Amino acid sequence: MKDAMVVFQPSGMRGKVPLGETLIEASRRLGADIESLCGERMLCGKCKVRIEEGRENLTEFQREEGNFISLAERKGGLRLACAAKITGDVLVFVPEETRASKQAIRKAPTKRPIKIDPAVKLYPLTLKEASIEDPLGDCERLNQALEERYGLKNMSLDLEVLKSLGTIIRKGNWEITVSIWNSRELIRVQPGRVTNAYGLAVDIGTTTVAGYLCSLATGEVLATYSLMNPQVTYGEDVMSRIAYHMMHPDDGLHKMSQAIVEALNSLVVNTVKETSLTPDDIEDMTVVGNTAMHHILLGINPEYVGTAPFPPAIHHSIDVKARDIGIRINPSSYIHILPIEAGFVGADNVGLLIAEEPYKKKPICLLIDIGTNGELVLGNRDKLMSSSCATGPALEGAQLTFGMRAAPGAIERVIIDPETHEVNFKVIGRDEWSKYSRPGEIKAKGICGTGVLDSLAELYRAGIISKSGAFSKTQRSKRYRINQENNQPEFVIAWKEETSIGRDITISLKDIRQIQLAKGAIYTGCKLMMRKRGIDSVDRIILAGAFGSYVDPEKALIIGMIPDCDLKKVYSVGNAAGDGARIALLNKNKRAEADRIAKQVEYIELTVEEDFQMEFTYSLQLPHMRDTFPHLKGIVPDDS
Amino acid sequence: MKDAMVVFQPSGMRGKVPLGETLIEASRRLGADIESLCGERMLCGKCKVRIEEGRENLTEFQREEGNFISLAERKGGLRLACAAKITGDVLVFVPEETRASKQAIRKAPTKRPIKIDPAVKLYPLTLKEASIEDPLGDCERLNQALEERYGLKNMSLDLEVLKSLGTIIRKGNWEITVSIWNSRELIRVQPGRVTNAYGLAVDIGTTTVAGYLCSLATGEVLATYSLMNPQVTYGEDVMSRIAYHMMHPDDGLHKMSQAIVEALNSLVVNTVKETSLTPDDIEDMTVVGNTAMHHILLGINPEYVGTAPFPPAIHHSIDVKARDIGIRINPSSYIHILPIEAGFVGADNVGLLIAEEPYKKKPICLLIDIGTNGELVLGNRDKLMSSSCATGPALEGAQLTFGMRAAPGAIERVIIDPETHEVNFKVIGRDEWSKYSRPGEIKAKGICGTGVLDSLAELYRAGIISKSGAFSKTQRSKRYRINQENNQPEFVIAWKEETSIGRDITISLKDIRQIQLAKGAIYTGCKLMMRKRGIDSVDRIILAGAFGSYVDPEKALIIGMIPDCDLKKVYSVGNAAGDGARIALLNKNKRAEADRIAKQVEYIELTVEEDFQMEFTYSLQLPHMRDTFPHLKGIVPDDS
Repeated sequence: MKDAMVVFQPSGMRGKVPLGETLIEASRRLGADIESLCGERMLCGKCKVRIEEGRENLTEFQREEGNFISLAERKGGLRLACAAKITGDVLVFVPEETRASKQAIRKAPTKRPIKIDPAVKLYPLTLKEASIEDPLGDCERLNQALEERYGLKNMSLDLEVLKSLGTIIRKGNWEITVSIWNSRELIRVQPGRVTNAYGLAVDIGTTTVAGYLCSLATGEVLATYSLMNPQVTYGEDVMSRIAYHMMHPDDGLHKMSQAIVEALNSLVVNTVKETSLTPDDIEDMTVVGNTAMHHILLGINPEYVGTAPFPPAIHHSIDVKARDIGIRINPSSYIHILPIEAGFVGADNVGLLIAEEPYKKKPICLLIDIGTNGELVLGNRDKLMSSSCATGPALEGAQLTFGMRAAPGAIERVIIDPETHEVNFKVIGRDEWSKYSRPGEIKAKGICGTGVLDSLAELYRAGIISKSGAFSKTQRSKRYRINQENNQPEFVIAWKEETSIGRDITISLKDIRQIQLAKGAIYTGCKLMMRKRGIDSVDRIILAGAFGSYVDPEKALIIGMIPDCDLKKVYSVGNAAGDGARIALLNKNKRAEADRIAKQVEYIELTVEEDFQMEFTYSLQLPHMRDTFPHLKGIVPDDS
Repeated sequence: MKDAMVVFQPSGMRGKVPLGETLIEASRRLGADIESLCGERMLCGKCKVRIEEGRENLTEFQREEGNFISLAERKGGLRLACAAKITGDVLVFVPEETRASKQAIRKAPTKRPIKIDPAVKLYPLTLKEASIEDPLGDCERLNQALEERYGLKNMSLDLEVLKSLGTIIRKGNWEITVSIWNSRELIRVQPGRVTNAYGLAVDIGTTTVAGYLCSLATGEVLATYSLMNPQVTYGEDVMSRIAYHMMHPDDGLHKMSQAIVEALNSLVVNTVKETSLTPDDIEDMTVVGNTAMHHILLGINPEYVGTAPFPPAIHHSIDVKARDIGIRINPSSYIHILPIEAGFVGADNVGLLIAEEPYKKKPICLLIDIGTNGELVLGNRDKLMSSSCATGPALEGAQLTFGMRAAPGAIERVIIDPETHEVNFKVIGRDEWSKYSRPGEIKAKGICGTGVLDSLAELYRAGIISKSGAFSKTQRSKRYRINQENNQPEFVIAWKEETSIGRDITISLKDIRQIQLAKGAIYTGCKLMMRKRGIDSVDRIILAGAFGSYVDPEKALIIGMIPDCDLKKVYSVGNAAGDGARIALLNKNKRAEADRIAKQVEYIELTVEEDFQMEFTYSLQLPHMRDTFPHLKGIVPDDS
């Protein structure tokens, strides 16, 4: 098969690619990152590129491309990179807004008291040297010493340990330190005396992967590292990735598995780099992630997680040899993957649970974990229920006119003056708010989830939009206008002088509708679960997750994303899922607790609940049922 | 680095090889097999080749080569292929006697009654289909059904099974058959109803590898396949291979491991080929082999097995995932490797024990397993002792003037007429004895172990050699002569017309001395163990092993290799080690029995026994201590 030369501008990435590849596949191959939020299904329109030369060397313009590309744009050479297949040489320009940029990583570990009782423990040993009178084998000699010295019996021994056992025993001159996993298996033997072992706790988010390198002796976090989940090139959300697997049955799953495995290996290398350790010194590892991330990491067919009744392949936690999935740490070590509650409530939620322990407390707690998907847990020591809600990609910035991920240049905070309707905003990567900056310095590129949420709340608080989400007929802000191209009402957040894309960044009515759908899904979930439990209010609300942790609780309350609650009782706990992974790494009893709890939590499939559709429709309003939100009094205008 | 062109004649194998490789390395690379009995250490002289062109393109003739190559031969272009390194193009002639030929494989399974109770069992299951009301995960659903239907609890599940579990359950329309290993782990799930599982029992000999494909339901042997242990190119015997590892610390062990793993994969493919099965249908596998073969297969450093006090890395049996060592059968299956008694009494001997079960019987039994190494077990239900004896390579044909392996063309049986001193012999691959053949038809190439042993016994019985092994001064056979080249007395077994090598095949005094050393080692071992047990005779003698099984018991008695015994009480049990592997494959309780017995057998290190040297010196005579061999009366000439 012949190749074609493809050049991407402005990065200058270039190279030969096989004929028949799409432009987005070519961009991956050549390292020119192009956004793809929908898993290359021509659904998100985020991968628009301009063909500078060689338009005739691409397959024909498809009907679906027309949903995102106007006739004029088409004449200007615009194509969707996921639609256009290469038939010859092309020169492609990737506009600023199409370029995938490095995610702002905000998954710091939280300080939590953790009882140290790791699964991997060290045992120093002195062996009697073998002789003609006592020619017992190395393994049996070791086991004999373990029993005599520590009362440990019948330890099994991984083959990789056995391979070099003789050499190491003699290198240590019959003094060694053995690492034992779960009082069951020898996973490492080192010459001489060793006093500390290390482990890595990992949180695999749909978008972000974070790793915490810990001392198993003290629990100290020695290094933290995060990176983007490289699977995003195969689809932004869980369903897109499952779809990618189903549309590429030969190698889709394998490619996505490999991508995350390589990301984990990169975490390993990058965390140990900050210390004097080597990857082999990582002797234990725990992983949390949603059910799809869990399945894809392990190479398990995720198809059925994406189809009703959404059964996972397995609920229980799994201990898998690191080498069996290609993770390069101490070769005999296991990776402990936390249990799954249900198809849409995964090990990440279990991590949150063992970190927050609502099942040990009396107050009724509502845990809202909003990442790329929304997961809810309601309950206390008597009973826990969980559910998931399809927030859609709007909170991640997808499907919004100027939506983007939480990356540098994204507007993340917005304040609108109720009097002047002037906007003050802050972009990621810049400390100064727009009010205190010269326009040219700001370089906003789009709006990320929290910025979108802030905008909605502020537009509402300032009276610019009404309870229904529609722009108020009476307001006369100069930022309000009807977009001439699509005839949509919109509100300007950033003027083009304040951007790096040379266009005003706006929130359109259509965008507002998307956010209403997302917040309504979460609110409906909370509401239905509370009804099931027979309560009208909760004692506390915990916001967690990559997105949830960064939400301003007041704003969330204003738009009616969370049930009414005293704001003093709303907590943001950061990356609690990652903390759960860390807790499980440092305390083996918490692993058992996780399995027990995951089994106890009752999963509620919201969509089959009575009145679901009606409740959902109600919940779209801002804020839903004012009278049920007494804590908003004085914060938003009173409709009465 | 530059390459050189190397051509091997008469095979015509040719190709580029890197400069600096020895001729024997080049021969392996190019597929021209050259014998190497000593592990390429210039010790056996078996790899002589003649350089036809390009003598100047090899490194200098070494002193050690002079031990095997006379000055005249050297002028004729002879070199040792393991000594000469390539510095430029060469044309090499490989003489007939240097060519490694395919071993005659004689390891048929023996008919033995075996109770069928395999480690892998099949369980058919019907699952309830998942629904919104019952969205339990596939794995938990399966486990629930296993418990309800069969009372099996807490089965673990291999990751490879989990990967396709969902797909298979739905392919079988919620009817499946699961394979469970040791009532503990799910290693396979198949759609629908399956009634039979299969396993492979393997005997890894130093020289020969044999595999028996069995039905786990009936025990029937469906296919048998044997091949040469490809490690022979790295050294003929165990010590040579350990030496190869020590001289090639970077990759010697890895190369030898890979070689045997590929041989096992070849066994798998070749056994299933005779049936309608695929490699994935092999769901269990057992392996026996001596300690070094065991260690090398598993990639365990075998160094310490070769050095006093010879401790193995492990005694206990091992269950290792087939995939962990690269064996391609059902990916979740285990390989069970039988336990080891001591550094020189390995899992092959344990196989022999569980096949013969001397520990269950009252008569005192002496088991003599002669392969490339000699292993002895003495005892009964009260007590078992084992030891090993260094038979040296003579019984395998090495270090003898015309010695060769048991391959086509090897003289394997010899009868000498006591009157005429005429020789009647039989070569492997030809049914007619030489007496009934025309000389040109016979094409003898050398003498293998049994032929050597026969020769010695017949020379002695015919009075051609005396009790001491020296040629009798009074005999006047026309086959007896003094070799003019080396001044050694020798006896012609085959005249050059009867050979394919164009030279008389002889047994020299030096050869006789080698065999005396070998048989003396075995006899000394038997004698010292009997002394330790406090007995003068045994109730039965069992001959086993690749070599032992083919020995003519009468000849073994004549030369004093075995203690005196009624010949009716001497049994040859064929490849009992392989039978042991088969028994362990078909009955999991025999695995536990093997571990128990291996631990109970007391290993005796003969060389440190009192009087060892003196006993050994006595035992060199033929037959040693006539008066202690009453059963030889009338068979050999009476010295008295």
